[in-house]
Amino acid sequence: MNPSDASSTSRVHVSLGERSYSIAFSTGELGSKVVETIQSLGPVSHLVIIADQAVEPHVLTIQQSLRKLELRQNTIFVQSGEGSKSVALIADLWNQMLDAKTDRASVVVAVGGGVIGDLAGFAAASYARGLRFLQIPTTLLAMVDSSVGGKTGINLPKAKNMVGAFWQPSAVIIDTDTLDTLADREYRSGLAEIVKYGVILDQQFFQFLEANADAILKRDPICLRHIIVRSCELKAQVVEQDERETTGLRAILNYGHTFAHAIEAATAYGQLLHGEAVAIGMNMAARLAVQLGMFTNEETQRQLKLLQRFQLPTEFSESTPAKLWSLMQHDKKVELGQLHFILPTHIGHVERRSGVTQAQAIEAIHVTER
Amino acid sequence: MNPSDASSTSRVHVSLGERSYSIAFSTGELGSKVVETIQSLGPVSHLVIIADQAVEPHVLTIQQSLRKLELRQNTIFVQSGEGSKSVALIADLWNQMLDAKTDRASVVVAVGGGVIGDLAGFAAASYARGLRFLQIPTTLLAMVDSSVGGKTGINLPKAKNMVGAFWQPSAVIIDTDTLDTLADREYRSGLAEIVKYGVILDQQFFQFLEANADAILKRDPICLRHIIVRSCELKAQVVEQDERETTGLRAILNYGHTFAHAIEAATAYGQLLHGEAVAIGMNMAARLAVQLGMFTNEETQRQLKLLQRFQLPTEFSESTPAKLWSLMQHDKKVELGQLHFILPTHIGHVERRSGVTQAQAIEAIHVTER
Repeated sequence: MNPSDASSTSRVHVSLGERSYSIAFSTGELGSKVVETIQSLGPVSHLVIIADQAVEPHVLTIQQSLRKLELRQNTIFVQSGEGSKSVALIADLWNQMLDAKTDRASVVVAVGGGVIGDLAGFAAASYARGLRFLQIPTTLLAMVDSSVGGKTGINLPKAKNMVGAFWQPSAVIIDTDTLDTLADREYRSGLAEIVKYGVILDQQFFQFLEANADAILKRDPICLRHIIVRSCELKAQVVEQDERETTGLRAILNYGHTFAHAIEAATAYGQLLHGEAVAIGMNMAARLAVQLGMFTNEETQRQLKLLQRFQLPTEFSESTPAKLWSLMQHDKKVELGQLHFILPTHIGHVERRSGVTQAQAIEAIHVTER
Repeated sequence: MNPSDASSTSRVHVSLGERSYSIAFSTGELGSKVVETIQSLGPVSHLVIIADQAVEPHVLTIQQSLRKLELRQNTIFVQSGEGSKSVALIADLWNQMLDAKTDRASVVVAVGGGVIGDLAGFAAASYARGLRFLQIPTTLLAMVDSSVGGKTGINLPKAKNMVGAFWQPSAVIIDTDTLDTLADREYRSGLAEIVKYGVILDQQFFQFLEANADAILKRDPICLRHIIVRSCELKAQVVEQDERETTGLRAILNYGHTFAHAIEAATAYGQLLHGEAVAIGMNMAARLAVQLGMFTNEETQRQLKLLQRFQLPTEFSESTPAKLWSLMQHDKKVELGQLHFILPTHIGHVERRSGVTQAQAIEAIHVTER
């Protein structure tokens, strides 16, 4: 893999039949890209921008550029943080959209991280039984994760992402300049999902991450563009083959997530960033795979080292393993009463395993001294 | 049209590609049909029956028959009435489904009228991003309306059906015996939608309704089966060509509904049954069509007479026409700022019209003495 190839890629196509769309990559051209994209959508009556308050400067750029189109626009600011993915907040959004006279030819423009994308995406999916929406992710995590796949939703008090829809965006715009103001901790949280793509699908990409860890941490523009584009390509390959998570293939993207969701639930979605929980979850999943004789200790260490190099947490001891096990039973991947784990066989490949016992899971959760 | 043909039809197929499904018709065989249908769905982990308290005897039949399958089952009873289609109630359903350990291989079984179907359908569409659901309509209105088309949803305080999803059932079972306990007023409300199919699509069917009005009011089994099957066939023809209401064709099913939704909103969805509001709306729409020179006075009278023969209301004077006009502007059929009306050109055919002025609409709303 030559990083300069991917860094010059300006578009990744996600092929989903009549629900296909493109991800456009740019650097410092957000305003013109947004105008171009909206113009490509056909008749539009009105725009509802749903945005994270924290990215207000980017929202101003978007609003100003869109004024050229002489369309009525409304902006609704939402706080980022998992707490916003609530029934109360989605109900508030629906009512605000109605007050803004949102109609079936309106387009929802989501500007922010994963929380905003999930929330605005579900608002778009459910308002008037479905509106078009344009996604503008402004965190590394959202760029490489929620920009591909159409998963939208909210949390219930006892379960994350339990309510929602598969709802594909009409287009996605990723402008790396929007990362300029992203805090380092948030940035590193995004790196956890990027490491995940290497472990589940692409050993070469994993090697690239190892070889360029310093440049990546320093946000080197060429490296940055490469890892985002490659992550989107990898995720698109999976989603194209299993859009609605029915064949089991798409489940591989949940590597580390069964543990991560339980950890997030145990901390009331507050303390850890999603990518941090995923980093911990990947480490636990690797340990579980070792226990089951699927994966080596050496590879577990190799994954651990890369996560640590990206300054990500890899252990969790603030809840009892038994509590986490119980929370996992609420995971929506539980199917026919069976909890499935995605576990690595080697770096670059994972498999789906059921029949994991409580004792085995608890052993993997326990902090191990090595 | 020979009524005995349709009355012996046991199945109507709704062709929607990978979302195709069948409506099975039966008389007094609900229990065995439900078992047969669930068995045809592939692996099922668990059943969530969401049912109207008022049809408890039918629910008991279903529960008992399903016990043969040795599947875990939970039943959630909901009050019928538009008031149940609220954000609070859907949130309550989501949480109850989670507590019942509903997973992605669960099947939602909706037993009741339109309100239950809309609510349970949206719960199925949104829980875990989409579960299979089996619809068992137990009112005439739900049998001929919500059993075809996949519209699900809830109301916002200021707008009916504003939040929801297009979510096709996996199967529908219509057993006419479930109508035995249906109150006459509810039964007649269903007849309004049946008259609608005649006006918008099938002059012969309209003539059949005129010629057999007495038998229909007496719930003659052969007539009853015929009018339900024919209504489902007509609706399926439309939905198959425009599943998501994008080409404009499906909008013809909304004949009378722009007025009806405003009337229902003005009475806080409480006073009139949906079919009653539709009967009034059809009469107003016909008057509007006459004003616009599209439709004759004679045909308006013919429609009026049939509605009156079915003892349906045809006028509404409990709100000002200006108030109704204002409420119509919130209708989700408003597109690109334009309110569209579905208006008849003759009995058996309607067209979509925009550009109706406030004065014209108000004139059509006013009670006219003839």
